Amino acid sequence: MSIPDEKIHPVATGRAAETVAKHQEPQELIFYSGWFCPFVQRAWITLEEKGIPYQYKEVNPYKKEKHFLEINPKGLVPAIEYKGEALYESVVLCEFFEDAYPDHTPRLLPQDPFKRGYARLWIDYISKNIVPTTQRLIQAQDPEKQREALEDSFKALRTFAQQVKGPWFLGEEFSMVDVVLAPWIVRDYIITEHRGFSRDAVGFGWSEYAHRLETRDSVLASQSEHYAEIYGRYLRDEAMSEVAKAIRAGRPLP
Amino acid sequence: MSIPDEKIHPVATGRAAETVAKHQEPQELIFYSGWFCPFVQRAWITLEEKGIPYQYKEVNPYKKEKHFLEINPKGLVPAIEYKGEALYESVVLCEFFEDAYPDHTPRLLPQDPFKRGYARLWIDYISKNIVPTTQRLIQAQDPEKQREALEDSFKALRTFAQQVKGPWFLGEEFSMVDVVLAPWIVRDYIITEHRGFSRDAVGFGWSEYAHRLETRDSVLASQSEHYAEIYGRYLRDEAMSEVAKAIRAGRPLP
Repeated sequence: MSIPDEKIHPVATGRAAETVAKHQEPQELIFYSGWFCPFVQRAWITLEEKGIPYQYKEVNPYKKEKHFLEINPKGLVPAIEYKGEALYESVVLCEFFEDAYPDHTPRLLPQDPFKRGYARLWIDYISKNIVPTTQRLIQAQDPEKQREALEDSFKALRTFAQQVKGPWFLGEEFSMVDVVLAPWIVRDYIITEHRGFSRDAVGFGWSEYAHRLETRDSVLASQSEHYAEIYGRYLRDEAMSEVAKAIRAGRPLP
Repeated sequence: MSIPDEKIHPVATGRAAETVAKHQEPQELIFYSGWFCPFVQRAWITLEEKGIPYQYKEVNPYKKEKHFLEINPKGLVPAIEYKGEALYESVVLCEFFEDAYPDHTPRLLPQDPFKRGYARLWIDYISKNIVPTTQRLIQAQDPEKQREALEDSFKALRTFAQQVKGPWFLGEEFSMVDVVLAPWIVRDYIITEHRGFSRDAVGFGWSEYAHRLETRDSVLASQSEHYAEIYGRYLRDEAMSEVAKAIRAGRPLP
């Protein structure tokens, strides 16, 4: 995902800007970010949650630096550089942080293999159901299509909501399932303002769960202001990011 | 994915039938399968590769047994029942077998966290790129769309092929990356016969790698005959499986 308009806020703002300022020193782990991108925020929440040392680098999607493209030719964020090698894909990175920093707590996947599988099943559900339905809802232009997309979003969220054990998805322990969903929660005011979405209409305690997520410190620490300006182009279906193009073409998200 | 025609071969045939016969005794792990389904075969190869004890149960998609739907309301295969609880999604199951049976070798993910992340990145690539492009190629009807889909398939495979270290994807060790791809290799004669595909045209040693995969014992052990009859409905874009419907609607694969 890229910043769809180079004129609007090229860097993180608000609490996220404070976090960026704290992570400028060179580290073994370099985190290549785009402040706007919800996929980036998944990895960022994980880093903040675990207190992993990292150096933050904002990637300008209009002028990607040569070194970044050398290690990561696909040029996508989130990405990391670790001992000179690149790794990317948001969930792959969340799993990597869990594997590579076992002493950094909290652990975000259960240690029991079956429960770990159950967590991965719902992480997969978020990626296959909640993310694309939300994205289609944002980009839908025709009122009838908007209505259908809103229903699809409610349906996808209700299936998930009914499995939230509380206070977090798996119960007492905050986990990678919560992390992977959170960026779409903190941006849901966009569909609330423009597409008739409401947390209360999801039911099953969704408003309360969403509020817990958006006030979690690691989520706040990776949170910028000004998403609304960026989302304007998505709401008019003018965005040219890879995600926006995939939704228009009916293709899997990158 | 379901068997698209209840009249055609309701059970595994060939080498797979022999494997089924060997796995009828009750076990702690029950493997719910559909002999035809490539997603099922990913989990099945993993079980056979590691020699994990399991009880095989064929799921009749036209008459799913009550007990199966009770533990797994979505009704999708592959699924497992483990100590009375269900888990599904092919890659989630492959990861679960790796986590839950650490003494069953070979290990299919590297122990080094970064290499493990690298393997997961390419597993993700297969699911997001190779599987949907292949499926679109099979279902494409219009000659122009078929030509485009064939080019997309070649492109997706070439990107992957260039990363094969040989003899297996990661090098000397057979891994989950190879497992997750294999079911689409053993079925590629369908697109070879009907859509102008050729392994040699992929280049980068693809024919040799594909041949190694399709002659691996765990792959052969989960291999039925008669895929061609089933694929007839996909080739005419008449199949009603969830995968077929998703491709037609331009939605993410289930």
